Amino acid sequence: MWQQKEISLSQLSRGFHIITDQVIKQIPEIINISKGLLHIFIKHTSASLTINESADPTVRHDFETYFNKTVPDNAPEYLHKSEGPDDMPAHLKSSILGSSISIPILDGELNLGTWQSIYLCEHRNYGGNRKLVLSIQGE
Amino acid sequence: MWQQKEISLSQLSRGFHIITDQVIKQIPEIINISKGLLHIFIKHTSASLTINESADPTVRHDFETYFNKTVPDNAPEYLHKSEGPDDMPAHLKSSILGSSISIPILDGELNLGTWQSIYLCEHRNYGGNRKLVLSIQGE
Amino acid sequence: MWQQKEISLSQLSRGFHIITDQVIKQIPEIINISKGLLHIFIKHTSASLTINESADPTVRHDFETYFNKTVPDNAPEYLHKSEGPDDMPAHLKSSILGSSISIPILDGELNLGTWQSIYLCEHRNYGGNRKLVLSIQGE
Repeated sequence: MWQQKEISLSQLSRGFHIITDQVIKQIPEIINISKGLLHIFIKHTSASLTINESADPTVRHDFETYFNKTVPDNAPEYLHKSEGPDDMPAHLKSSILGSSISIPILDGELNLGTWQSIYLCEHRNYGGNRKLVLSIQGE
Repeated sequence: MWQQKEISLSQLSRGFHIITDQVIKQIPEIINISKGLLHIFIKHTSASLTINESADPTVRHDFETYFNKTVPDNAPEYLHKSEGPDDMPAHLKSSILGSSISIPILDGELNLGTWQSIYLCEHRNYGGNRKLVLSIQGE
Repeated sequence: MWQQKEISLSQLSRGFHIITDQVIKQIPEIINISKGLLHIFIKHTSASLTINESADPTVRHDFETYFNKTVPDNAPEYLHKSEGPDDMPAHLKSSILGSSISIPILDGELNLGTWQSIYLCEHRNYGGNRKLVLSIQGE
């Protein structure tokens, strides 16, 4: 069984956001899958996807602090400046974190660990809507 | 063909560990797959998976040194401190390295490069057992 | 439907290179896939794969600058020095960026975002040929 759909998320503020429920709401088909995989792909080069802890919002805050420190806006060595000071660091963060994740499906549900959630990592100040492709496969 | 199973690895010390043989031992089914993929997912937010070199143990040592320097314990800017000084850096390292890997299967075997092995990256001082989901698909 | 093939790319200079067209040329089979996934795996521990922006070559230049600064050659703390000063940083960059990517296939084409391209990230000064495994699945 194969399913694939594209969804659009409304603009989020710069930072790290939990989107697990928004994703699950879009894929009721997984109820019929006993074992499989969900692949999520973001069609952008200045936002990314990762899996991390959902319980304490300070974790997401610390993610933003850490990545802004490690991949600073306005680093003097960047040549690619034409799209604003937050653009080149957004490209770098996107590749460090990655443009896709995949999660096992078991008995009709995502088989995430207790504390795991899906993060949409918005690296631009005004990133606009973000398109995701959800691919479901399994049996 | 789809197979999926969850395995548990006993607690490993903080650092980078090769688990290729432990994984292969759990998936004798791949002998019947001529082309396919193995997907490995770790159900935790403070440990991760990557693929890297197995020949020289100093590589794994340098990984631990590098990530401790780049993502330090006890950074003064972390707000998420309630679970210990090694917890927030563990979350960051987990997302930088990633919670899943996937490897081609060819003619009944993992089609890794000569020097490639599977690393379990344990980012906590006392991380406990770690659960992995192994998904095998192919034909 | 499953297809899998191994291809070899001729030696590229150290840095970040767009290989989207080279990959697409090798997988004419995807014309028959209405929905699926392309998985690309690099069989090396000192080169990696990522997806990022293709329009402005200074982005790729800034990637090389950034990763050389963040993961320096000749860091005094590296123990693994036997294969040259560019070897240990190449292993680290390889795991930060990752050894595989996967991209949705829709109606016979890769379903990439407007600005997304496939990067081969060559982290060695003289890395030689690089082997990739392309796995196509879908229906």
